[in-house]
Order: sequence, then structure tokens, then C-alpha cells
Amino acid sequence: MPKILVTRHLGQQAMTVLEQSGLDLIVNPEDAAPSRDWVLGHLANPEVQAICLMHSQPSDKVDEQLLDAASPNLRCVSTFSVGYDHINVKAANARGVKVGHTPGVLDDAVADLTVMLVLMTLRRVGESIQLVRSGGWPQLPWAPFVNCGQSISHPSLTIGFLGFGRISQAALERLLVFTNKTDRPQIIYNSSRRRDNQDTIDADFSKRYGVDVKRVEKEELAAKSDILIVLCDLNPSTKDLVNKSFFEQMKESAILVNVARGPIVNSEDLHEALTTGQIWGAGLDVLTGEPNITADHPLLHVKNCLVLPHLGSADYDTRNKMAELCARNAIAAVRGDELLAEVKL
Amino acid sequence: MPKILVTRHLGQQAMTVLEQSGLDLIVNPEDAAPSRDWVLGHLANPEVQAICLMHSQPSDKVDEQLLDAASPNLRCVSTFSVGYDHINVKAANARGVKVGHTPGVLDDAVADLTVMLVLMTLRRVGESIQLVRSGGWPQLPWAPFVNCGQSISHPSLTIGFLGFGRISQAALERLLVFTNKTDRPQIIYNSSRRRDNQDTIDADFSKRYGVDVKRVEKEELAAKSDILIVLCDLNPSTKDLVNKSFFEQMKESAILVNVARGPIVNSEDLHEALTTGQIWGAGLDVLTGEPNITADHPLLHVKNCLVLPHLGSADYDTRNKMAELCARNAIAAVRGDELLAEVKL
Repeated sequence: MPKILVTRHLGQQAMTVLEQSGLDLIVNPEDAAPSRDWVLGHLANPEVQAICLMHSQPSDKVDEQLLDAASPNLRCVSTFSVGYDHINVKAANARGVKVGHTPGVLDDAVADLTVMLVLMTLRRVGESIQLVRSGGWPQLPWAPFVNCGQSISHPSLTIGFLGFGRISQAALERLLVFTNKTDRPQIIYNSSRRRDNQDTIDADFSKRYGVDVKRVEKEELAAKSDILIVLCDLNPSTKDLVNKSFFEQMKESAILVNVARGPIVNSEDLHEALTTGQIWGAGLDVLTGEPNITADHPLLHVKNCLVLPHLGSADYDTRNKMAELCARNAIAAVRGDELLAEVKL
Repeated sequence: MPKILVTRHLGQQAMTVLEQSGLDLIVNPEDAAPSRDWVLGHLANPEVQAICLMHSQPSDKVDEQLLDAASPNLRCVSTFSVGYDHINVKAANARGVKVGHTPGVLDDAVADLTVMLVLMTLRRVGESIQLVRSGGWPQLPWAPFVNCGQSISHPSLTIGFLGFGRISQAALERLLVFTNKTDRPQIIYNSSRRRDNQDTIDADFSKRYGVDVKRVEKEELAAKSDILIVLCDLNPSTKDLVNKSFFEQMKESAILVNVARGPIVNSEDLHEALTTGQIWGAGLDVLTGEPNITADHPLLHVKNCLVLPHLGSADYDTRNKMAELCARNAIAAVRGDELLAEVKL
């Protein structure tokens, strides 16, 4: 009887899907990461044809060791994540093992958080929360412009996206309802390369969103954006892309929001940009070195910087959808069907 | 020469409007509230025909004393605020003094903040900010549902409004872009009284927003709302309206967002509702007793409660528009024109 190995309970919704598949399951009984030996031991079982595993459990790293330990009957490694940097996809594919992941289902959750971070950063909310918690509210002298932030309905706003995939577009759709109804915003973005039919692509975007949307080079993106949103992949060409020289080109009134991956923004250069007034504020859901961000991290001590612990996809509905897609990828593989979402290099 | 007395510098935009009016100005030279004597002394000047004043400066309270001190030539009291609980409107009107205020121009800013607070409360962002700041991120064990909040695109969501005026409608317009595209939300609201043509009114709202909108009684609002937004006036009938018995009717998964006035929600009952799990979370921009909220306030020590220091209208564009409307009301009065926005009891 074919079996699916599950390295962590996936929540009731996905577990029900697995149970109703009629396949046998081997589920880690602990509400914690299993040991590496537990994973390797069960993978050696010739009945185990698929494994549902986690991005952030060291036990689950799919490397040559794990692939060597698995029986030749393993057909699929199905990760509960979009990212697959914990998986040696090439080595897996070379042994006939497909890699499944969970794209798409988290776009709305990340777009929601993006808009929330834009509003929080514009309105200086991190600073205000600290003021209240530290007991500073009673001492705050009232003034016409006390605690003021920037308005998202400011006329002729320019919103810039570094990366313009599905999540950026979902964030844009939400942002537009907040922007000035008369003096509409300009949307600019930078994507990895200019296409031959770029003008047609941008005309289509402009039509779809009812505002002017245009691909620009990185320099123009830095110089013109009032709100700069980082939503590109992390790869060698984007690591440290937002650095000292990028910040030097930005407006002093601009804000930066990073909801992609920490290392795209250079933390030291961001610290300098925030403390010297090169930019106005930053909202970060991701940060280089996470989760090992201790209380003495310099960016936690800058008033105009807000840091969240990578909440992007963290809502129950979204995580349940990711878990279900992870389960369905594994089931499809065992049945010899196409995966619902396969990593293809 | 008619003069306008200005008790606080109104920012460059509004001051330019005042200067270009050709009228003489007497402006408080300090970046602080003036003394009561300064205000009363200048009001006795028979050339002073209007005063631009502030809601939150004790010097500016418009009572019998102030009206007695003013020359009979005073035509207008123009406040830099929507609220006018610092003004004895009846006494002013009885002496032929009109009262100007600044409604409308802050609707967008408050609606933006409302949506931001809804997202922050659903996604448990206050708690997460504290986790990061206190250095707890490295110790947070990863799990499939760690740090999870609720999704605003949950199917069949019910969004409830206590009060359904311009700001509620502006917030609704923004919220709808985040909600489930297939399984649309239900919108319910309670307003002070049921109108004779209530069904027609609600049909018009439903058509305008493309979702089902319906006035309900308070009990139904409490029982059915997944997201409850308080955006009504504070008056004797709404004080403590959201109290123990209201919370007892609410869903355990529901959140409360108050962006109106603190005393509409009973703080002790809210504390009990949050700590006993009667409701899931709260986001407050206003709180009874503000600004005298000290660090030991019980609601600041509840994980699922987020408190902001009354940021509703606090963005530069909005405050400039309020200041300009305050200035234009005063100018109109001196010229013998209708005020742009007059308080009429």
C-alpha cells in the first residue's frame, strides 16, 4: 500500500484531504520538527512514495543525503512553501522525484500585509504605538500637526514596485482604492528585463488598472517613487539591490516597504538612509538574518522603521490553503497524476 | 480694518489663504497654546470680527466668559476641528456669532486608518511588533500556523458598522477590495433610528457597493459581525453602548475597531471581553480618558489589544485642509458671506 510521509501535522483541513485520499499516512506525532533520523528512517520504507515537508525544519532539508536515504519508490517531495531553497531540485529530478510547492494561494495574504505596511509607514504608526506603550501620550503637547504622517491620497503620487508579479499586482489593486480620485497616481515598476513588447504590456496594465503603469530602469524607480514596494525574488542579481547608491537617489519624503526577502535591502545602508533623512520611513516584514533578530538590532532602534516577524502569508485561511495544496501535490504524485504545482527549473 | 484672531499658527497653506484675504491678522506668535488672557484681551478689540481657534487648547474654550469678553463686532468662531463640544453654540448664536467647523475633509484619512486597524487587528500585528522589539523572534519555534491571524478574504464575512455616515461608507469602499471575490461579504449597520423608507435606502446602498447592505438592530449587529467598526457620534444614547451585554452577544472570533470616540466602548467591559475570550481582538484609535493614558493602563497589557494615540485625521494633507477650511470660514464670516461649513443646531 503506497504511503505518504508527513513531517508535521498540516492542520485539520489538509489532514482530512490526506485521510480521504485512501492512501496510508505516516504522520510525525509531535507538534514540533521531527529528528533527521525519523525522516530518513521512514523514507527508507519502500512503501513511502511521497513526503510532505516544511521549509523551516532542519530535519526536512532535501539534499543528497536525504535522497540517498529514500527508497527508489519515492516519487515526490512536496513542500509546504512557495520557496524551495531547502530543496536540491536538480538532484531530486535526476532521480525521478518531482518537487511540489504552493504558489498563488498566498498572494492575497501578502498583498493585504503590503497595503497595511504602506499605511502604517506613511502614518508613522510604529512610533505612535511605542509612544502609547511607554506612557508618553499624556505628555504629548497638542499641536495642529502633532503625530502627522503622510496621506496616501496625496495628489500625483508615484508608487513604485521592485518586481511586478502577481503579488505586486494584487497590492496595486488594493492601493488604488486609497489614492487620490482626481489627480491619479503614476505606477512605475522595475522587472528583471525589458521585453520586446514592453510598450504593449504596459498599455495592457494601464488599461486593466485605469492608471498609467510603466516599466522603468532601477535608477528612475529609485528617483521617482514616493512609495517603493519591494516584491521581487531574491537571487544574485537582486541581493543588496536596494543599497547606499539606491537610497541616495530616492526622495527624502519617500517610504520603503519590503515584503519580499531581507537581503534585497542592505540593512546597514537602510539604517543610514533612515537616520540621515535620505528617506522618510521604512516598513519591513523581512530582514536579513531573520529570525535571529535580537533586541539590540540597530533597525529596531530607529523611530521611523517598523519591523514585523515575516507575517506575509500568516493567516489561517492561507496556511490551510498552502497545507492543502501540499497534500494534493503528494496525492497526485502517488496516483501518477500531474502535480497541481510543480517546481520546474 | 476688520481683523481675524488666530490662536495658533495654522500651517503655511492656511496662513497664506488668510494673508491673501487682505484682512488684518493677529496671530499667536508662540508654537504653543496662548494664555486665556491673550485670547480674551484680543477678542475685546472691536476690530476683531472672527477667531480661528483649536479644539484642544484650554485657552480656546468658547463659553459665556469668552463671549462676554468679545466685542459686539465678533461674527464668527471658527474651530479647527469637526467636533464642537468645546463651544457653547447656543450662547454664541444667541449673540449673532456663527460657529464654523471642518467636516468632510478628514473622511479619507479616518477611513484609511480604519482599514489599517482592521488589518492590524485581524493579523495580530500589535502582538508581533512587541515580539520583535522585545527580542523574542529568535526564540519563536516555527510551526505551520505560528503567528497566524485571520484573513480579511474569509468567505461569507460579515462586516458591521455602528454608525453608517460618510466615514463608514468611505471605509467600506476600501474594505471591499480586500474581501472574498466569490463569496461576498454581508454588510450590516446600526444607525440611530429606522427610517420609514429604510428598505429603499438599503437597496440603494446595496446597489452602490455591489454587496448586500442592511440596517439591523444593535443586538443583531453584535451577534453577526465578524468585524465590528465603531464610527458613530458620541452622545448620551451611544455612551457605553458597547458594553458587557453587547460583548456577550458577539462572536468569539470577532474583532472590534473603535475609531470614533473612546466612551462609546466601555473600557472595563472590553478588557474582560478580551481577556476571557468573548471576542478575538480589538484595535482602538480612541480610548476613554485620552490623552491621559499612562503605561499602567490595563488595556495596554492585553496582547490582543492595540492602542493608537488618536491618529484619525493626522496626516499633513488632511490637517492642512482642515486649517484652510477653518481660515475660509472666518474670512467668509467677516465678508458677510455664508460659512463654508457652519454648525447648525
